[in-house]
Formats: sequence, structure tokens, C-alpha cells
Amino acid sequence: MIKVVILGAGNLAFHLTEKLLNNNSVDLVQVYNRSISKIHYLEHKTLITNNLNELKEADIYIISVSDNAISELSSKLNLNDKLIVHTSGAAHINELKSNSKKGVFYPLQSFSKDKEIEFSNIPICIEATTKSDLLLLGKLASSISTKCYKINSEQRKTLHVAAVFVNNFVNHMYFIGNEICDTNNIPFEILHPLIEETANKIKNLSAFDAQTGPAIRNDSKTIKKHIASLNEDQQNIYSTLTKSILKTYGEKL
Amino acid sequence: MIKVVILGAGNLAFHLTEKLLNNNSVDLVQVYNRSISKIHYLEHKTLITNNLNELKEADIYIISVSDNAISELSSKLNLNDKLIVHTSGAAHINELKSNSKKGVFYPLQSFSKDKEIEFSNIPICIEATTKSDLLLLGKLASSISTKCYKINSEQRKTLHVAAVFVNNFVNHMYFIGNEICDTNNIPFEILHPLIEETANKIKNLSAFDAQTGPAIRNDSKTIKKHIASLNEDQQNIYSTLTKSILKTYGEKL
Repeated sequence: MIKVVILGAGNLAFHLTEKLLNNNSVDLVQVYNRSISKIHYLEHKTLITNNLNELKEADIYIISVSDNAISELSSKLNLNDKLIVHTSGAAHINELKSNSKKGVFYPLQSFSKDKEIEFSNIPICIEATTKSDLLLLGKLASSISTKCYKINSEQRKTLHVAAVFVNNFVNHMYFIGNEICDTNNIPFEILHPLIEETANKIKNLSAFDAQTGPAIRNDSKTIKKHIASLNEDQQNIYSTLTKSILKTYGEKL
Repeated sequence: MIKVVILGAGNLAFHLTEKLLNNNSVDLVQVYNRSISKIHYLEHKTLITNNLNELKEADIYIISVSDNAISELSSKLNLNDKLIVHTSGAAHINELKSNSKKGVFYPLQSFSKDKEIEFSNIPICIEATTKSDLLLLGKLASSISTKCYKINSEQRKTLHVAAVFVNNFVNHMYFIGNEICDTNNIPFEILHPLIEETANKIKNLSAFDAQTGPAIRNDSKTIKKHIASLNEDQQNIYSTLTKSILKTYGEKL
């Protein structure tokens, strides 16, 4: 049994806690959070605390807090030779400020509290400074997912930027599509099959080859009509992305 | 049996031809294309022609060509009281220039020639000027899909703009994500589960509630690091979309 303490109560910490509580290879001995009210719901499932001096003994301490808070929180920990990891896609392993052993345990997925997550398909990117720590993190990763990758801080930074494009920015495109439908009283649901197909397509086709629409056809008449129908903020995004698509294919076709 | 002639050989025409050839309720009597070489592969399956004076008799003539060509092609048709429809999301029904009856048969999906399409889940948006024509188009739509919507030209224009955001622009985000991975020798496949989850999420959660990432957290440190790692074109898109996300939540949270 790998003994784990989780520090944090954000979206990822929440889902990781749920997953590790129901895991035969792991003993989730404690959850820490600065504000105890956010983890009160766990009090009958594991130990909870808001006091860093009360942390229990464990093999791995998982810091799952906002990127800006990793340094400060880790600097307050006095855990001797224990392994401390963060779960951030963007933060370097050396953001961990402590004398303990360092690592990263980054599940590459987008977590929302209101949406259940199937962990088994999530790529877990791990990093450590010693082989034995890497093995330990690999063991933890394997207990919750079938996909584990050894990824260093530089590579993880790249992955995280790419993830912002394919997740955050994609979701914002959904938001604007929804907004346009709402403004004109059309149910956004009509677009769900298109959204699904767009995501499915790139499993078998490169995004370069999968592109369709007025921009790649340089269909200026339709582009003008579209822009005229949008509000100023939407127009700005439409123009920026249309220009980028035109440039992508103008140069490569 | 509904007798159909298809005019065109683009992505949509290609898939529609395949679907109607294998449809018990439809007799695809002929396919027309300006360049006969593009439809030669059909010569043992149906009649083909590149001569508009040789069009056979049918109940519905489906014009599936680029938006810019709909007016010109339709103006050349002499089909008396037959029903002529286009398949465009962006073109008004009156782009059809002919004395025949007019309609629209718009499958709301993105078609790539290299990717097979399951039509049964695709919303088909139909429009006509008479009840009987609408019924006929509804019958044709029902023979290939379970989802048929009566959508007028104004509504379809809205849907089409929204579709550009959730399909074309989303695919361009995938392209840039892929480009970033390629530049840094990371397999893009690691991001596939995230892409799938992002698309699945909005079936149960609004895009507004599903948003995560550095922009919504206003995590300026990560945003700056990301921008520094991108090329100029990527930076431009990153900044535009990050500002838009900040504005969306700054105003609404």
C-alpha cells in the first residue's frame, strides 16, 4: 500500500481524492486544506486537517493547489526525506521549495467538480529526481490509469501550452457558439454531433487535413456575411482565427 | 422511391452520393459534375454527366457545390416545376436562381473525403416554400438520419456561424496544439484523451461552467510563460483568446 497525503481541495485535488479513496493499492491517510470547510465532507472517509504541523506520515505528499501557491506551501513543509510532488502542468519541478525529495504527478486532463472523471484513460505525466522515486510515482500512476508517461519539466511545459489550445481555447469556442445560438433562440444541442465528430476526426486524420469551412476555401463572401452578424468581441476572434487559417493553408497548400 | 439527381462532387456531395446509392427509399438516378473526371468512379453505379442539358427526370435536384457557385449553376437549370435544393449552411434559399421550386437540404456536419461518416446522427436542416416540398425533403432526410429540423434561412445563417466556431476554429486549435507538440518532439496523441473529454463535457455541462485553465484563474505568471514559449502567430491567438476568456468571466463571475 502506498501511503498518500493530498494537500489542496481544487478541482484536480477533489477528483484525485475520490479516486485514491477507492483504490486498493493506496492508503489515503489524510487530506490537508487551508480552509477546512472545503474538506469537511471527507471527515468520515479519511483524516482532515488545516494545520501543516499535523501532517501524518506518508510515502508521497501530493500538493494540488494553484500554480502560484506551490512554492509557498511547499516551503512550509518539514518532511525530511519524504517525496513531495505537485500536480501542475505549468510549474517546473523546482517550484517545489523544500529539502525533501521532489517530483511531479500531472494527470493531463481537464477537471470540473460537477463532472465525473474516468481516470483509467487519462495520461499521467510523472517526473522525479531519482529512479526509485520515479518507480514509486509510476506505481501510483498505474494504480489509477493505463497511460503513464515519463515527461520532464521542459516537455511538460510544452504539453501544457498545447493543452490550453486544445482544451481551454476549444471550450471557449464552444462558449461563443452557444452564445451565438442563444442570441438567436436556436438550441445549441443541434451542434453537439458536429462537436463530437470534430473531436473524433483528429484521431484518424491530422488537424491540417481535417480542416473545412469558409476560411480554408477563402470564401470571402461567406466570411463577410459571418462577420457582419457577430458582435464586436466575436468579430475580433473570428477575424484573428480566419487570418490564421488562411495563412496556414496559403503557405502550405 | 424518391428520385434524386446530385449536382456536384465536393466533400458533402461525395458522402451524400455514397449514402443515397445505398438507400432503399431513394433512387439516385444521376450525378452531374462540371469536370467529369471527378465522378468517373461512379460510372458503374449510376448515370454520370457533365452536360446540364442531359439531366434526367427526378423529384429532387440537390445542388451541392461551393456557396459562390450556387447562383450561377441554378440559373442554368431548366427543370420546370421540379424541386431544386442546395446543401449550404451559409447561402439563403433565394441564392437559387431558377423558376423551379426551391428548398434547402443542409446536413450540419463537417465532411472530409478521407473520413467515413455515420449519417444517422447528423442533424439535417430543411427548408422549402411549400408544405408538400417540406414533406418531401423531410421524407428524404428521415431516410438517412434520425434528426431532422425545420430551419429557415435566417436561423441557418446563425447555425452556420456557430458551426464555424465549434468546428473550423476548434480544429484550428487542434492544429496549433499539434504544431506546438511537433516543434518540441512530443507525440500529439498524449492530448487525445483531453480533446475527447473536452468535447464530451459540454453534453452535460455548459461551456461557461466547463472552463478551466490559466485564463479563467487569471494566472498571469503561467500566461506570461506560455506566451514566451510560442511563435508570433501563436502568441497573437493566445493573447486574443485569453483576453476574451478573462472578459467573459470578469463580467459574469
